[in-house]
Formats: sequence, structure tokens, C-alpha cells
Amino acid sequence: MTEDEKQIRGVVDQWLSATKAGNIETVLSLMTDDIVFLVAGQPPFGKEEFRQNSAEHADKSLEFDGTSDIREIKVLGDHAYIINWLTIEMKPEGAERMNLSGYTLSIFRKENDKWLLARDANFVAPDK
Amino acid sequence: MTEDEKQIRGVVDQWLSATKAGNIETVLSLMTDDIVFLVAGQPPFGKEEFRQNSAEHADKSLEFDGTSDIREIKVLGDHAYIINWLTIEMKPEGAERMNLSGYTLSIFRKENDKWLLARDANFVAPDK
Repeated sequence: MTEDEKQIRGVVDQWLSATKAGNIETVLSLMTDDIVFLVAGQPPFGKEEFRQNSAEHADKSLEFDGTSDIREIKVLGDHAYIINWLTIEMKPEGAERMNLSGYTLSIFRKENDKWLLARDANFVAPDK
Repeated sequence: MTEDEKQIRGVVDQWLSATKAGNIETVLSLMTDDIVFLVAGQPPFGKEEFRQNSAEHADKSLEFDGTSDIREIKVLGDHAYIINWLTIEMKPEGAERMNLSGYTLSIFRKENDKWLLARDANFVAPDK
């Protein structure tokens, strides 16, 4: 594994552990300012919408646990892409526990020697 | 627009026009042998599954028309990614006309001086 690959895997792990810990600012520090999230059934959204969504969830004392299984990682100079399989368990306060899973196709960009998530196509959905 | 960008746009246009014309072999020639398609609600699939799906559709005399609106294109040496908005109208023989649309995050790879689709996260779904 190259140093770049190791760092990108580290960003994914840090993203999940910071989400679990409710550290929104840490999660935000792992994405580019121009990030684009693509998900099913809604328009693309960016960092500001992500921040607002996370703040709403934080109010609901969301319990969150996520694991990542990176199926492919390809470094292309100062960009990289991964195909990632995510498994997520979450429980908003007062609501039922939910299990979600799905793939992402994610593009990372290296800025100031730091790998950041830049584009994310995310198919994570509730398990049937 | 750079020559690479122009060629990638040409691949997208050729994909849609070849699909419309029912030229499966042309469409297959526009993707890498190791292509991975990610779509909602089913496992990732590759070139062989795409071929089989297309053959089934061909049997049903599918009418197809698609347009593309590339929202971002970024060339990274011998790779590139695009964010694309697709609008598709299709009508299988004996069935109702369907309108579909959605974004893709697509990665292209240059092989032997030819740009090919290599990874495709596809959110195209029936319009509500």
C-alpha cells in the first residue's frame, strides 16, 4: 500500500469515527470546500447543506456506527477515486435503530498535502 | 475546451446515439473491459452483465432517446471524471413510455489514445 492510499483510507476511517463521536467540524475538515454529494432522489448538495444536515442530526442525539470496506482505490496524481462499501447503524433518539448499507464512488483531491473528499456518489440506503 | 474534454463529450454523445440506434457493440466499445457500474438497489455489475441486459432490451424492440448535460468535466492525465445529468425517454414494445432522469458520476480512462468509460455511478431513475 502506498503512502497516499494509506492516507486516503485514514480519511475514510476518520470520517466514520468523527461522525460517531458527533464531531461535525472534524468531518467538515475532511472535505473540499467545493465538494459535491450525489445521492438518490434529491439534487446534488455541498458542504453548507452537509453542515446544516449534520447540525439537525446532532440535535436529535443521533447514535451512529459505520464501517467501511474499500473495494478499489486508485491514485491519479493529486486526485484519487475509491469504490467503498459502507455499513451503517444509526439510532436517532426516540426512533428505531436503522441499518443502512451501500456503495460509494468517491473522488479525493490532495490539497496542501492532505487528502480530502471532493466528489461523492452515495448509494447508501436502508437495508430491506 | 481541450481536445481530451472534446473527446470525452464525444464518447457520451456516441453512447446515447448508439443506444438509440440499438448498436450494442458500439456501446460496448466505449467502455473498458473492467468497467464497474454502480446503481441503486443492486450489486455492482460489469461489461458482460451490461451486454446481457442490452441483448434482452434489444429483443423487446426498445425505443430510446437520451440527452446529456455535462455539469463538470475534469481531466487528470489519462483519467477523467464527469458529473453528468441524463434525461432519457424509453418505450419498450407494448409497454408505456417512460421518462427517466438523474445524475451520474463517471470516470473515464484513456486507453490507446481513446477515452473509455471505466466507472459509472448512475442515479438515473423514473421521473415522479
